[in-house]
Amino acid sequence: MDLSSRQKEIIEMVKEDQPITSEQIAEKLSLTRAALRTDLAILTMIGILDARPKVGYFYSGKSILSSIGSYMKNLNVEEVKSLPIIVFEETTVYDAIVTLFLEDVGTVFVQNQEKNLSGIISRKDFLKIAIGNHDIQKMPVAMIMTRMPNIAYVYADESLYDAAVKIINHEVDSLPVVEKKINDNDNEGLKIIGKISKTTITEVLVKIGKE
Amino acid sequence: MDLSSRQKEIIEMVKEDQPITSEQIAEKLSLTRAALRTDLAILTMIGILDARPKVGYFYSGKSILSSIGSYMKNLNVEEVKSLPIIVFEETTVYDAIVTLFLEDVGTVFVQNQEKNLSGIISRKDFLKIAIGNHDIQKMPVAMIMTRMPNIAYVYADESLYDAAVKIINHEVDSLPVVEKKINDNDNEGLKIIGKISKTTITEVLVKIGKE
Repeated sequence: MDLSSRQKEIIEMVKEDQPITSEQIAEKLSLTRAALRTDLAILTMIGILDARPKVGYFYSGKSILSSIGSYMKNLNVEEVKSLPIIVFEETTVYDAIVTLFLEDVGTVFVQNQEKNLSGIISRKDFLKIAIGNHDIQKMPVAMIMTRMPNIAYVYADESLYDAAVKIINHEVDSLPVVEKKINDNDNEGLKIIGKISKTTITEVLVKIGKE
Repeated sequence: MDLSSRQKEIIEMVKEDQPITSEQIAEKLSLTRAALRTDLAILTMIGILDARPKVGYFYSGKSILSSIGSYMKNLNVEEVKSLPIIVFEETTVYDAIVTLFLEDVGTVFVQNQEKNLSGIISRKDFLKIAIGNHDIQKMPVAMIMTRMPNIAYVYADESLYDAAVKIINHEVDSLPVVEKKINDNDNEGLKIIGKISKTTITEVLVKIGKE
């Protein structure tokens, strides 16, 4: 967003002499208040200036940050999710590690026989097991995975911001994107329909920056 | 940035009937053109609408994206870098893995005797070695690390956007933040002064969203 030179001048003026009234700004610029109205409305609107009634204008400078915030809050997980890599509870730890390398991912999701999300395994979980004295060629992933209800996940209609908050708060690298489903036996389950990772977030930012 | 209900109405109108002139918008809203001037100026200014002389207004919707891009390009790595975890070339693979768990990081940087950046090891590198038949208690990290000049790194005065691009292009989880230095023997080296990871980027976004 490009500001006009007059708008930039107004910002500098407010930064130096805040609070400052529109009359004072108009006088300094030798303009009428009416001529300034649109510029002041724009600067207040986009949040660079803060207007307090009967006091005047303050410099806030928050606008760009808050637009990033609202952009992230309006972007649905659905629009940016990537393909999930899924193994079964019976898959051996060794085979799951091979899958992780072949698919070039950092986290593997696990589903049970009803095809519901039942676990998640990170590179660190695998590494911990691999340096121990375990027969990883025979051990099923069900023995080492993080299980429900300890799995952090998101629904497709949550925002990228919600996903980022969960990733940071739960200290994980990625989240399964899920949808609720009713199984044959009337139990509720979560179907894995995608993945949101720190990589997704970084890619979104790179894509935005390129545009 | 919150748009007024009239501004939102104008946006919807332009989306449906673009290009549309200010006369047509004024007529639909039963307002004078003068009453619309500030709203149209704001919407054009922040880039949601595009105005073409003698044609009318178009919907662009680009503004927020471009402010995110410029924010990321103006934020220096210096301001957001975190502490690097560093081991020596002689450190054993086992000890480096223990450090990775103790420090709760995903990547370990390696420095040589001159205290210059000489290597980097990811969780995947460790995992690959751990599942092979290696004596990781005796093997030094120098045997498995990615070496210069194959290490992606950033300088402190590069932007967070530059860092994100390198992370995606080199398919890594984190970058050492370095500064050039001249060693005693007049060789140039890179001193490790920080770390930028996908976690850093995700944290920055969460922080922005909270504000």
